[in-house]
Amino acid sequence: MISPIFLFVFFFILSYSYASHVQDFCVADYSAPQGPVGYTCKDPSKVTVDDFVLSGLGVPANTSNMYKFGFTAAFAFDFSGLNGLGVSMGRADIEVGGIVPIHSHPGATELVVIGEGSSIIGGFIASNNKVYQKPLNKGDTMVLPQGLYHFFVNQGKIPAVIYAAFSSESPTVQLLDTSLFKNDLATDILAKTTLLDVAQIEKLKKLFGGTN
Amino acid sequence: MISPIFLFVFFFILSYSYASHVQDFCVADYSAPQGPVGYTCKDPSKVTVDDFVLSGLGVPANTSNMYKFGFTAAFAFDFSGLNGLGVSMGRADIEVGGIVPIHSHPGATELVVIGEGSSIIGGFIASNNKVYQKPLNKGDTMVLPQGLYHFFVNQGKIPAVIYAAFSSESPTVQLLDTSLFKNDLATDILAKTTLLDVAQIEKLKKLFGGTN
Amino acid sequence: MISPIFLFVFFFILSYSYASHVQDFCVADYSAPQGPVGYTCKDPSKVTVDDFVLSGLGVPANTSNMYKFGFTAAFAFDFSGLNGLGVSMGRADIEVGGIVPIHSHPGATELVVIGEGSSIIGGFIASNNKVYQKPLNKGDTMVLPQGLYHFFVNQGKIPAVIYAAFSSESPTVQLLDTSLFKNDLATDILAKTTLLDVAQIEKLKKLFGGTN
Amino acid sequence: MISPIFLFVFFFILSYSYASHVQDFCVADYSAPQGPVGYTCKDPSKVTVDDFVLSGLGVPANTSNMYKFGFTAAFAFDFSGLNGLGVSMGRADIEVGGIVPIHSHPGATELVVIGEGSSIIGGFIASNNKVYQKPLNKGDTMVLPQGLYHFFVNQGKIPAVIYAAFSSESPTVQLLDTSLFKNDLATDILAKTTLLDVAQIEKLKKLFGGTN
Amino acid sequence: MISPIFLFVFFFILSYSYASHVQDFCVADYSAPQGPVGYTCKDPSKVTVDDFVLSGLGVPANTSNMYKFGFTAAFAFDFSGLNGLGVSMGRADIEVGGIVPIHSHPGATELVVIGEGSSIIGGFIASNNKVYQKPLNKGDTMVLPQGLYHFFVNQGKIPAVIYAAFSSESPTVQLLDTSLFKNDLATDILAKTTLLDVAQIEKLKKLFGGTN
Amino acid sequence: MISPIFLFVFFFILSYSYASHVQDFCVADYSAPQGPVGYTCKDPSKVTVDDFVLSGLGVPANTSNMYKFGFTAAFAFDFSGLNGLGVSMGRADIEVGGIVPIHSHPGATELVVIGEGSSIIGGFIASNNKVYQKPLNKGDTMVLPQGLYHFFVNQGKIPAVIYAAFSSESPTVQLLDTSLFKNDLATDILAKTTLLDVAQIEKLKKLFGGTN
Repeated sequence: MISPIFLFVFFFILSYSYASHVQDFCVADYSAPQGPVGYTCKDPSKVTVDDFVLSGLGVPANTSNMYKFGFTAAFAFDFSGLNGLGVSMGRADIEVGGIVPIHSHPGATELVVIGEGSSIIGGFIASNNKVYQKPLNKGDTMVLPQGLYHFFVNQGKIPAVIYAAFSSESPTVQLLDTSLFKNDLATDILAKTTLLDVAQIEKLKKLFGGTN
Repeated sequence: MISPIFLFVFFFILSYSYASHVQDFCVADYSAPQGPVGYTCKDPSKVTVDDFVLSGLGVPANTSNMYKFGFTAAFAFDFSGLNGLGVSMGRADIEVGGIVPIHSHPGATELVVIGEGSSIIGGFIASNNKVYQKPLNKGDTMVLPQGLYHFFVNQGKIPAVIYAAFSSESPTVQLLDTSLFKNDLATDILAKTTLLDVAQIEKLKKLFGGTN
Repeated sequence: MISPIFLFVFFFILSYSYASHVQDFCVADYSAPQGPVGYTCKDPSKVTVDDFVLSGLGVPANTSNMYKFGFTAAFAFDFSGLNGLGVSMGRADIEVGGIVPIHSHPGATELVVIGEGSSIIGGFIASNNKVYQKPLNKGDTMVLPQGLYHFFVNQGKIPAVIYAAFSSESPTVQLLDTSLFKNDLATDILAKTTLLDVAQIEKLKKLFGGTN
Repeated sequence: MISPIFLFVFFFILSYSYASHVQDFCVADYSAPQGPVGYTCKDPSKVTVDDFVLSGLGVPANTSNMYKFGFTAAFAFDFSGLNGLGVSMGRADIEVGGIVPIHSHPGATELVVIGEGSSIIGGFIASNNKVYQKPLNKGDTMVLPQGLYHFFVNQGKIPAVIYAAFSSESPTVQLLDTSLFKNDLATDILAKTTLLDVAQIEKLKKLFGGTN
Repeated sequence: MISPIFLFVFFFILSYSYASHVQDFCVADYSAPQGPVGYTCKDPSKVTVDDFVLSGLGVPANTSNMYKFGFTAAFAFDFSGLNGLGVSMGRADIEVGGIVPIHSHPGATELVVIGEGSSIIGGFIASNNKVYQKPLNKGDTMVLPQGLYHFFVNQGKIPAVIYAAFSSESPTVQLLDTSLFKNDLATDILAKTTLLDVAQIEKLKKLFGGTN
Repeated sequence: MISPIFLFVFFFILSYSYASHVQDFCVADYSAPQGPVGYTCKDPSKVTVDDFVLSGLGVPANTSNMYKFGFTAAFAFDFSGLNGLGVSMGRADIEVGGIVPIHSHPGATELVVIGEGSSIIGGFIASNNKVYQKPLNKGDTMVLPQGLYHFFVNQGKIPAVIYAAFSSESPTVQLLDTSLFKNDLATDILAKTTLLDVAQIEKLKKLFGGTN
């Protein structure tokens, strides 16, 4: 038989210590400044289950663009509960014949699973220039090691749905084309540092809206 | 115009430096011993694209058990390319009325997306005993912060398919029931340290095969 | 012979650089918000030796409860100097016949030394359900790897004093019983996800104050 | 009612996945080489509870030396279960009037608790040369931030017993005196780089066995 | 006066503990396999000062190539003492009018100091496509955050000497041009995923030796 | 031919997601408080290339002091772009016959390259008291593992210029002499804990301005 008074004492002690100091998570407070490893923590008493749930990966992203590709992110910048926890997800939709253009994630590894689709070429390029590529089908997973260029091409007959996991709650994305052609980097510098022809650069700058 | 001889010199230098020292990844060599942060690396010259691709998440796991639940893992222990990269995935299948029993992942955060299904209760318990739970539908994501108890219950009308990402390439799983009742932990110690009744413990030990 | 003027110049330079930028430590400023890896730093000029010293582990914790167990923490939430430094301590007192109930520390390893006492069963359960347990005596140390269930039972003839070190300055504690029975997690969900009998759940909810 | 066949299937799956891949810990295999973050892991099937328990901190260390100080370590080099887990402990004994000479732990923070004793001066020196010191009594804890010089002096009337926790399983110790005077560092270089007098250096080299 | 016998006892204890367990460093043993965080450690008794010293950054690298650029690395793959320590260096030489082609270091930050030279454009491109660039002169330092594209153009009147530090002992280098054009990545996939014209791709494949 | 409307849609999506959430870097906002791992991030829209460039390492530091040594730092405390990126640099100037006094960097490894000079003794002392030292010449690099005592002596015939890289953006420096003799640490405690003679201590306290 356990006396209520004993219980009270015991839980008082533990409550006193831990109740207001929960560090199981650090839900992002977007109104406060960020630090090198993430957002400031929201007051735990204001955290609700909705901070840990994000909807929106159930419908295809808009793929009405030249790549026939769309992406919906579940990253820490709009999924507060992910802050500081080292993982995030996203959903990529690729129409038949569509592609995910060459890009890299500085410092984050990506791991994908094919939710729907077949004959989707997944590939990455290692720093010794070797290409690792393979057609992927439904249920296949592929890992794209951190910081390396990678791409997908849907060569199948149905639209592809890809779920991607990242080893960071805030992965960034460096797209090769927009990095080179959607800014004010001077054409002569681009030409010298990429060896691309000036005409090629100017053509793509026009497409992407680059200047200089 | 660029002279081939110049090219040769330049690439010789870079090749010399990097070709045999690629550290973009450390594919697991399962025949060698492990260290605290993962498996020994396979000789890079023997790495192929198949080390970075794992099939099998396209079909439902076997759910013919009392939980009506099955899980297929894409973890580093059989997905060599994940070694050292800090992320992994899995697929959970839950029949109608099925559940994922209470468990935790020591040191790994889990992030799930509902691939198929509706009205799937997802919940976790923080260290101040507060429960964060919510019915999840197709396309919803939920984060289960590292090390905390969590569970799922499929209260919907169709089988659920859940893709889970983990913040570790080698997450471990501590299932509450098998931890308590599927080993030789003495019943009297269990009774004292959990406050469960002896009859309850004996009943579950019988179910799970525990002794003592 | 060294000229004072030279000294002045030298120390001026070094003082200028470092005096106001000491990053040897980051003493917690409890009035400012936290981030994912700890508290904001107090202004170094206001830091005193008292930020690095905490008293209170010299006297037994209150053990007047059903477990005959008490715990006094020296964690970052009230020991400002520990902030960001990756280690903390605590003192556990266990009366004769008392126990430390099954619990885990999500993401932190615990290392204990028996300060006083004998025949104290220390045990933890690995994620493959194997139990590692042993009677501990004065001067014995035992490591409880991160995130795993563990417990202690004082089967000796004198009260036990245990000093515990943690691999985190802010370890959290997930107690099995209070996680399950001291909140509003519905009995039917608990029954399904733990396989415990409803009667058992209701009995322990009554004891711990759980609802639903 | 749960059918044994269902159970078998379920546990077969989970056993298959995890039984031989437990990564909850990485017990040191001292016969294999080390890596930058610790020892190679012992075959899990050969791990026993004795890997997680180390005895010997219950008795005073030998203090029959000029410092009247002794130290017993529970570090990963002889406590295999600590490997990779980021925490270790030790016991320091200081006779009345004894001292712990000035030293630092490169990269590890130390957190001490006074088990026995009173009026023990604990102190550390920050990198801006400021000294943080205070007399410590039984039950006081003090944190010595990573890499900084620190020392203890027992000014009380009874021998001191100090339990120390470290934020590394393999802390190293750099003792000021032995670093300077117990090796073959030439006296003239020592004199120039420390500004100590040659006579002083020679006297201490004689004491500690230094040459050159 | 200090008795030799006391000294012996004291140093015996400390020697016993630490002498064969130095973990201050983990010098690479190139004959043993690597793990995810570096090379296996060389037997400490075979480590000499030469493991910590590497020569060769005092002379210009060969710049007789189309870029008029050469690089000499002091990375862990041939500088054994760096293993596990998280920093490395290199020397870049850029002739007048020469360039460092666009590249990135997956997961490593680079910090350069201009040793010799002037009007060297240093630039990097953030993941939102913004270009950060500036002419650098002798003594200027510039940081290139991890994983982002960057480049240098020597627009000055003398050869440039740049010392670069990296936040990793084993940084990898992903050169844009060789990644795209010096392997067997099919031209049609390249064209789709980069939007470059087929003629442009074929021209550069010819230059770099790419196939398919 | 690519329709502008498609482009708009595609870039709108990506811009929406990433433009205001760039986490490629976290430039220090010196007006806000620090956390354990660095400064708060400046509003990305206010970041300019000047945050990533620091001048001043092109000219010798003032060496008019007893050591004939000067140091110019490019550390995060005045180089905002380094915040959170794990690397920093500095320039050391040592006159002929000058020295860098014995010091350590708690928790940071240093890697130096000799920019100018010859016969510069570089040395460090491991925690087992072994000295690793060697004369360094132009172009030589030497690594000084984290937290260990090290020093330089210019025994050559020209002033030395040394570029140093650190494995932290905010390394701290603990100088042996100023730690001991430039504060209020009592002479008797110093004498006991260092075994230095009182006369020696008083002489150096006078030189460095120590009291007590």
